Amino acid sequence: MDFFKQKTLIRFINPSLLSSSDNKNPNLLRIQLIIIYKMAQLSVEQRFELIKRNTAEIIGEEDLKKLLKEKKTPVAYLGTAPTGKPHVGYFLWGLKVCDLLKAGFHVKILLADIHAVLDNTPWSIIDARYDYYAAIIPEMIKALGADTKELEFVKGSEMQLKPEYMYDLLQLSSHVSVHDCEKAASEVVKMGDNPKLSGLIYPLMQACDEQYLGVDVQLGGTDQRKIMVLARENLPKIGYERRIELMNPLLPGLIGKKMSSSDPNTKIDLLDNEEAVKKKLNKAEFIEGDIDNGVMAFLEYFLMVIKKDKKEKLLIERPEKFGGNVEYSDFEVIKKDVISKKLHPMDVKLAVAKEISKILSNIDRKKVEPLEKKAYS
Amino acid sequence: MDFFKQKTLIRFINPSLLSSSDNKNPNLLRIQLIIIYKMAQLSVEQRFELIKRNTAEIIGEEDLKKLLKEKKTPVAYLGTAPTGKPHVGYFLWGLKVCDLLKAGFHVKILLADIHAVLDNTPWSIIDARYDYYAAIIPEMIKALGADTKELEFVKGSEMQLKPEYMYDLLQLSSHVSVHDCEKAASEVVKMGDNPKLSGLIYPLMQACDEQYLGVDVQLGGTDQRKIMVLARENLPKIGYERRIELMNPLLPGLIGKKMSSSDPNTKIDLLDNEEAVKKKLNKAEFIEGDIDNGVMAFLEYFLMVIKKDKKEKLLIERPEKFGGNVEYSDFEVIKKDVISKKLHPMDVKLAVAKEISKILSNIDRKKVEPLEKKAYS
Repeated sequence: MDFFKQKTLIRFINPSLLSSSDNKNPNLLRIQLIIIYKMAQLSVEQRFELIKRNTAEIIGEEDLKKLLKEKKTPVAYLGTAPTGKPHVGYFLWGLKVCDLLKAGFHVKILLADIHAVLDNTPWSIIDARYDYYAAIIPEMIKALGADTKELEFVKGSEMQLKPEYMYDLLQLSSHVSVHDCEKAASEVVKMGDNPKLSGLIYPLMQACDEQYLGVDVQLGGTDQRKIMVLARENLPKIGYERRIELMNPLLPGLIGKKMSSSDPNTKIDLLDNEEAVKKKLNKAEFIEGDIDNGVMAFLEYFLMVIKKDKKEKLLIERPEKFGGNVEYSDFEVIKKDVISKKLHPMDVKLAVAKEISKILSNIDRKKVEPLEKKAYS
Repeated sequence: MDFFKQKTLIRFINPSLLSSSDNKNPNLLRIQLIIIYKMAQLSVEQRFELIKRNTAEIIGEEDLKKLLKEKKTPVAYLGTAPTGKPHVGYFLWGLKVCDLLKAGFHVKILLADIHAVLDNTPWSIIDARYDYYAAIIPEMIKALGADTKELEFVKGSEMQLKPEYMYDLLQLSSHVSVHDCEKAASEVVKMGDNPKLSGLIYPLMQACDEQYLGVDVQLGGTDQRKIMVLARENLPKIGYERRIELMNPLLPGLIGKKMSSSDPNTKIDLLDNEEAVKKKLNKAEFIEGDIDNGVMAFLEYFLMVIKKDKKEKLLIERPEKFGGNVEYSDFEVIKKDVISKKLHPMDVKLAVAKEISKILSNIDRKKVEPLEKKAYS
């Protein structure tokens, strides 16, 4: 599209964007056009519904609607410690990150390296793991179908040791009771018999993170709820705004309810090949007729969601003697067929394994494998 | 003394100090000479006894002896929040600071401004109070008879918000249990019904203070004991040395057992005039025949100590009809005479008031009064 056509189009859609200085800058106009085009694809209502779908809870729904109306590029963040190897379980929050990106958000992934180091992993290893996370997560997000231009990585140690951050943390600590910190941490931090003070400081750091990352929205699992509520209740006490809190449901592990970081067979690594994926899923807990397992949850909250987005059907291949191939476009029908035992766990698992491998095949292995080796050797 | 005499003297006392480069620097020689002269005044044993006298406890006595033998200028610190107006009660730790200075220590006074601000006093006021403290305390130390060349003031906020300090604080928090922090804080921090998390963080900050102030010794009241023990037990866990902990006894207030910061009559301000001192002391709790009061404690731990240092006697003036003037060079005799009611509380109080006024008269009021006005108006 040539320069004058672009200008005409912008004038038509949003004349306020055409300031006098912009008139002579075709690159700026092009960027504005892309933004307008993206926004124009989805209405505020559609963007809101995209963000809300499959969440367990949103604290501040009205604020979220207002935010979508008023802010060009709202900011959200998700925090995680760069420790264990990223696995297919990350698809679940990954999909919500994709939803946010598609809804026009800038998304920051906070990699909490300090927390990881305080958990007794040396800095050198954590730095290598940070590098791997910062490489593999964008690959995962792309594989799930979102653009990663608005995806950013932030290193905890580069933000959380700043004097102003620490002062605010101390300020918060003088407002929040020991009891409230204990309550907030209880579902996230392993407290054990003799809990360490760090476990009570972390929830306050998470509140400060919202401020220092400059976000409008925090994304986390429902296990983060009490920490999020603590942040909302206490940030205003030190002069900051409370944030919108977006919660994904906590789902059972794909392979079994008890995931173990020491046993690699309980998790599908993002770099596993087709054979490994198939083998691991084959061992997944899934009793015939029973829908209470990780495979069904993965289908409901992830696989059938992206299938629907792509307007594709899930193909379940079966030998003719077991009823032949069958296609599903709706999770509810899969669920019904599993309950009535029309659909056998083995066939579902095989289909899910194929779909996972298809997604993983999009990851640029050459790019991430050397980093993976450095981080986990 | 001329240059060559100095060199000869140094060669005689400590030839190792005469390195080739020093030979040509008269100033350096002069400084070395002063140090040697000061050290020569007191033996290690004498310096140790000076530090130990009237303390309630020293944790690490052997380390202290070793320190005095091996380190030219050891470093000690005392921390206080620049909040309430410095009063005559400060004489008690002030005297121990004098002892340390006379024993060849460099003494740092940490003025914990962050703690004070977190206690809801605005920065502007705390900054003014910092200035007053940093002016009046050296005046007090001089009035108590020590040189203040080796007295230094450190602002908490200039040290405690540094990234490396905060990282170490977080490190410590991952080693120390909530329970141990609670125990350590219990005697110092007002915990109340719903204690704030800051109260549990402060003991860990005090441990970090020892490291970041670079001290060998911490001085505090016995109420600090649990915090000091916490520091000794946990600093080595993050790679730092444990420090020597020096504790002054906790004494009853001079005027009454319940000192109140809201009632200025319960404390003698360092800028009170003779009349005010007399009036306040007149109201001090002191039952005839009873030695369990602040006036007697002040005599035992402060006044008769400096009298002895100066080889002076305490003069108690009485009308002839009540026995006439009497002089004491030993607290034990005063004690005996009070118990046997040979000495009346009124006469003791009057004598103490005179002595306090004599000390306070050494303070350079013109220098500190403008700062006092800014800090407490």
